[in-house]
Amino acid sequence: MRVYLDNAATTPVDPKVVEAMVPVLANTYGNPSSIHSKGREAKALIETSRKAIAKYFNASPAEFFFTSGGTEADNMILRCAVHDLGVTRIITSAIEHHAVLHTAEELAKTNGVEFVLVNLDEDGAVDLNHLKALLEDETHKTLVSLMHGNNEIANLLPLEMVGEMCKEHNALFHSDTVQTMCHYRLDFKKLNVHFATCAAHKFHGPKGVGFMYVDSNFKFNPMITGGAQERNVRAGTENIHGIVGLAKAIEIAHADMEHHQEYVTDLKLYMVDRLKATIPGISFNGKSATKDSLYTVLSVCFPPNDMGEMFLYNLDIEGICASGGSACSSGSNVGSHVLRAIGAVMERPSIRFSFSRFSTKEEIDHVITVLKELYAVPA
Amino acid sequence: MRVYLDNAATTPVDPKVVEAMVPVLANTYGNPSSIHSKGREAKALIETSRKAIAKYFNASPAEFFFTSGGTEADNMILRCAVHDLGVTRIITSAIEHHAVLHTAEELAKTNGVEFVLVNLDEDGAVDLNHLKALLEDETHKTLVSLMHGNNEIANLLPLEMVGEMCKEHNALFHSDTVQTMCHYRLDFKKLNVHFATCAAHKFHGPKGVGFMYVDSNFKFNPMITGGAQERNVRAGTENIHGIVGLAKAIEIAHADMEHHQEYVTDLKLYMVDRLKATIPGISFNGKSATKDSLYTVLSVCFPPNDMGEMFLYNLDIEGICASGGSACSSGSNVGSHVLRAIGAVMERPSIRFSFSRFSTKEEIDHVITVLKELYAVPA
Repeated sequence: MRVYLDNAATTPVDPKVVEAMVPVLANTYGNPSSIHSKGREAKALIETSRKAIAKYFNASPAEFFFTSGGTEADNMILRCAVHDLGVTRIITSAIEHHAVLHTAEELAKTNGVEFVLVNLDEDGAVDLNHLKALLEDETHKTLVSLMHGNNEIANLLPLEMVGEMCKEHNALFHSDTVQTMCHYRLDFKKLNVHFATCAAHKFHGPKGVGFMYVDSNFKFNPMITGGAQERNVRAGTENIHGIVGLAKAIEIAHADMEHHQEYVTDLKLYMVDRLKATIPGISFNGKSATKDSLYTVLSVCFPPNDMGEMFLYNLDIEGICASGGSACSSGSNVGSHVLRAIGAVMERPSIRFSFSRFSTKEEIDHVITVLKELYAVPA
Repeated sequence: MRVYLDNAATTPVDPKVVEAMVPVLANTYGNPSSIHSKGREAKALIETSRKAIAKYFNASPAEFFFTSGGTEADNMILRCAVHDLGVTRIITSAIEHHAVLHTAEELAKTNGVEFVLVNLDEDGAVDLNHLKALLEDETHKTLVSLMHGNNEIANLLPLEMVGEMCKEHNALFHSDTVQTMCHYRLDFKKLNVHFATCAAHKFHGPKGVGFMYVDSNFKFNPMITGGAQERNVRAGTENIHGIVGLAKAIEIAHADMEHHQEYVTDLKLYMVDRLKATIPGISFNGKSATKDSLYTVLSVCFPPNDMGEMFLYNLDIEGICASGGSACSSGSNVGSHVLRAIGAVMERPSIRFSFSRFSTKEEIDHVITVLKELYAVPA
């Protein structure tokens, strides 16, 4: 039995997404910048996709710019906010994805941007009082960059509240929504979020494509220069089949979102119960074991065992795909900057299990059986 | 009859490439950075592709970095050469792709890089004496960025000679090889080319993927920061199905390259003959009508007609896909910076026809018939 519980790293592509992409890949080969019939055919697919996408987020199509994925989108937002919008201070947190953290750090080094980390509580939640205090200093043009859902410990940011705080203090607000987009409904007319990011492969779409949302009040210059694609904001021939796959995955996610949320939440809470009942001394990082966390992610802090680095390998041998942290930290929780930032017990092995609507109870049961054997708990 | 003669803008994806990609898209969904079986499966595909690709270019796999396409690759090379290798002067030409020209112009503005254009002759060929004279000033750390084959007027740069000149004068050499990669064999051990670029969709591969070749003597920091993908040079989850499609397209191109070259060259020269015989006063831009040009591209300078902007539309109505210049300049030769740079007669309509191994004589005949009718030349 193979059990894939690493959906925060990436998700299986929905067969309906593949089905939508293949004819485009095979036949709609025109360059969208060409004015002839093949070009217009390709262009129409892109613009129809953009329009369809915008509707799900209650936004204007002109606010969406296709990219090669979430990392590029995060880079564009931070870099362009500094280069084009005059941002001189970035407030972020120690548990952001490296696409944000490393980019902000680089901007601090190369552009003299002030780089400020907001305090987190012991569960990794943003200290809103500290954020408020930071925002009260309005001498800098500030960008707040805080992720909506944490990919390792499942914290959810109160987007609406932080948006309001930013508005009150004239700060720009970027939320890395890579883990939550198409897992929660986002209404950009209602939220005071100026910039957001998306990677299709986090919700059963293809790899290599995503978008950046930019509130129409702001205008970016391209980070990747060249042709006038994406209304002169992102040069390079468009990944048409990828964009069509992205739009399809968004459509599918929104068609039945509440049911998926409920199904996956129940699955996670079932696993929490089974883990607690099976392995004495188990605990959970952040708020991931609660109903109020990013429902796709569970970060489990296991009792000490003598497997060390072999823990994940042993799971893998039993067909279980899970991870030590984000995919980028190569499966080992030694490398997890997130767990370190919240003061997790690094001597105890932490494993992230992450779910999707394709996950099943039977898979959870298999994991529990394997864990029981590894810990050799008397039945 | 639909005739697609805009292969320099983009090419139809080879059905065998689609066939190679679909199972990967549908099944190999792991994140290559994950250490479990699904991750390793994905990682293996990427590294097998990289190894296979490197062999065709007589280079080391470690010299290839996958990107979202040619434009991103050109951007990385120019920007990283300035930021990481200390380049303070870029020598380029007025007929480069905007991915190079606009990037070099921006680096001149933001980083104070000296931006120098080498002279071109009336056909668009680089004045090698001028280049030599420029290179003799070695006070600057210089990057020469000259494309191998021009996408509009089909000029070919003598890569080996320019490489030698750069070597002699301690200059770095980047060649935008987007139009020639997989159309000509490139041996990076033999050529003194330090950096080169590739977009899969220019040779029957998918859109949204390409690579940058970087001679192993040079080390770039990432332009897009985040995870440690691509040996810490390009962050972002890899486009696995795209990379597999890229590798397949490269394999197919190299399996029968000389035959394709001969076939397409003959087709172009056939069109040249038919055009000359059919439309009095016709001429050709650059050296595109000769055997020594980029064999896929023919730039035709038509006698004046009263169709104006409607010329291309009229062809389109007859099912003929061609362009006024590069795809980026939206079909109209008014926008072609290349034609302007070589002093083409802008009052006369220029149309680019570009061919692939899927093009046929019957298609050329159809174009000639349509052109004959448009010009109403007595039979």
